[in-house]
Amino acid sequence: MDSRLSTSRLRVRGYHLDGYGHVNNARYLEFLEEGRWGYFDDRPGLARRLSRGDVAFVAVNLNIDYRAAAVAGDDLEIRTRLSSLGGRSARMGQEIRRVHDDALVSAATVTFVLLDVAANQAVPIEDEIRELLEPLVMEQTLA
Amino acid sequence: MDSRLSTSRLRVRGYHLDGYGHVNNARYLEFLEEGRWGYFDDRPGLARRLSRGDVAFVAVNLNIDYRAAAVAGDDLEIRTRLSSLGGRSARMGQEIRRVHDDALVSAATVTFVLLDVAANQAVPIEDEIRELLEPLVMEQTLA
Amino acid sequence: MDSRLSTSRLRVRGYHLDGYGHVNNARYLEFLEEGRWGYFDDRPGLARRLSRGDVAFVAVNLNIDYRAAAVAGDDLEIRTRLSSLGGRSARMGQEIRRVHDDALVSAATVTFVLLDVAANQAVPIEDEIRELLEPLVMEQTLA
Amino acid sequence: MDSRLSTSRLRVRGYHLDGYGHVNNARYLEFLEEGRWGYFDDRPGLARRLSRGDVAFVAVNLNIDYRAAAVAGDDLEIRTRLSSLGGRSARMGQEIRRVHDDALVSAATVTFVLLDVAANQAVPIEDEIRELLEPLVMEQTLA
Repeated sequence: MDSRLSTSRLRVRGYHLDGYGHVNNARYLEFLEEGRWGYFDDRPGLARRLSRGDVAFVAVNLNIDYRAAAVAGDDLEIRTRLSSLGGRSARMGQEIRRVHDDALVSAATVTFVLLDVAANQAVPIEDEIRELLEPLVMEQTLA
Repeated sequence: MDSRLSTSRLRVRGYHLDGYGHVNNARYLEFLEEGRWGYFDDRPGLARRLSRGDVAFVAVNLNIDYRAAAVAGDDLEIRTRLSSLGGRSARMGQEIRRVHDDALVSAATVTFVLLDVAANQAVPIEDEIRELLEPLVMEQTLA
Repeated sequence: MDSRLSTSRLRVRGYHLDGYGHVNNARYLEFLEEGRWGYFDDRPGLARRLSRGDVAFVAVNLNIDYRAAAVAGDDLEIRTRLSSLGGRSARMGQEIRRVHDDALVSAATVTFVLLDVAANQAVPIEDEIRELLEPLVMEQTLA
Repeated sequence: MDSRLSTSRLRVRGYHLDGYGHVNNARYLEFLEEGRWGYFDDRPGLARRLSRGDVAFVAVNLNIDYRAAAVAGDDLEIRTRLSSLGGRSARMGQEIRRVHDDALVSAATVTFVLLDVAANQAVPIEDEIRELLEPLVMEQTLA
């Protein structure tokens, strides 16, 4: 697997479902957040830099396609990568796939800005943070 | 208020927050779903037609801008309208605003298809359902 | 209604359900928390005292009976009261009832201690806080 | 480890927290439910019997002690066992422990009845189901 991609797994449970027996739309966002935390767990240098607390990545947009309904007992894999890095924002591309047949359950793009926490203001992505992110950019999903 | 717009209100509570003291990204999708249920509550003819269960609207895409962080005690208003009606899909436009200053907290567009439940297949939006939806289309948000 | 009792209402929605079409066990705890926030909203003197932040009530035990399954569209009323006040702990009694037939959906008792936030240690419930709580104690539910 | 005990693990993430930076009270019930699903995953004979759908275990009471606050990054282990088996009800004992120091975060007892699904009525725990459950009873937690 490409080292720029991180994966997390979980099994769909009763409490993830809605009344139709499908994973609820909102719950997928928790699965995606789980994938992003896993991504930072896999990159301790980046996590350490962000743990200083002077700056933080804040989501400003999330775009999600719901492609197939996951049901109880499905094992899902969340695949997370940094898909683009601009001067003032970055994007993470995420996919949720059903493990047994690799079916695409959901695909999402999350756009972040870098917040100067003290000033509560978005700042350019520069210097050390940029150097940490640049090698991680992976534009295409590996098929 | 334009009769094509529905509104729901809720107060932000501790259980809506994440560790930063802000409403969590995933929780906003529950607020939006609350707004859509309220929209159908306000339109009993449409709700009754859908309650037959032969067809159902299913979300295929959700695009959400996170504009301001809501915190505990904020009263939020969710505004929901049908923003467009195509041959095979429809869109709902939703805004979440802070009541005391009308600040835009979040704006979202949800795209739906009409599912033939027995066939588990998207079908054109025609006949009675189309007639029920057409007068509801409201392209612009009222400022 | 007895002034020592507070009530909150909500309508059960799709996102509250689990795969059986019933409100999920965990979700009831959010409904109960909603009821407790409403209780403090109704008592601004008490809320103001706690907002100083030197002390906080922290739940140490929750005991909940699940009596009837609530389903989508049910209007629920959460009834919250202070049911007992001891030297070092207090209990809130809560009921969730279905509005249309007053059926008991769930009954819970939550035990709290008063935390000295700086010391991160439970302290006796004394002085001003005790004086604020004493008139609120309501041992029996009004039938 | 005693074969009558099942364990599940998870890492606490931002979306599990409330505004105090602690895992929210309601969220622990999802962790406990996760543990119970894991328990059935570990016992395919029992899971298969229940999957017939004629009977189902339904929670009628949950009693939970909140002992320590879990925070972001904590690895938690959920330990689940059948703690007692009566004629008409059964109890599961569950603990949530912090992995790195084995501290008890939460302890819960969940009481179940066996529901005859068609009759929507609790029935005695007899015959095949009783035979499957009896060897699983583990009264004491292993220290």
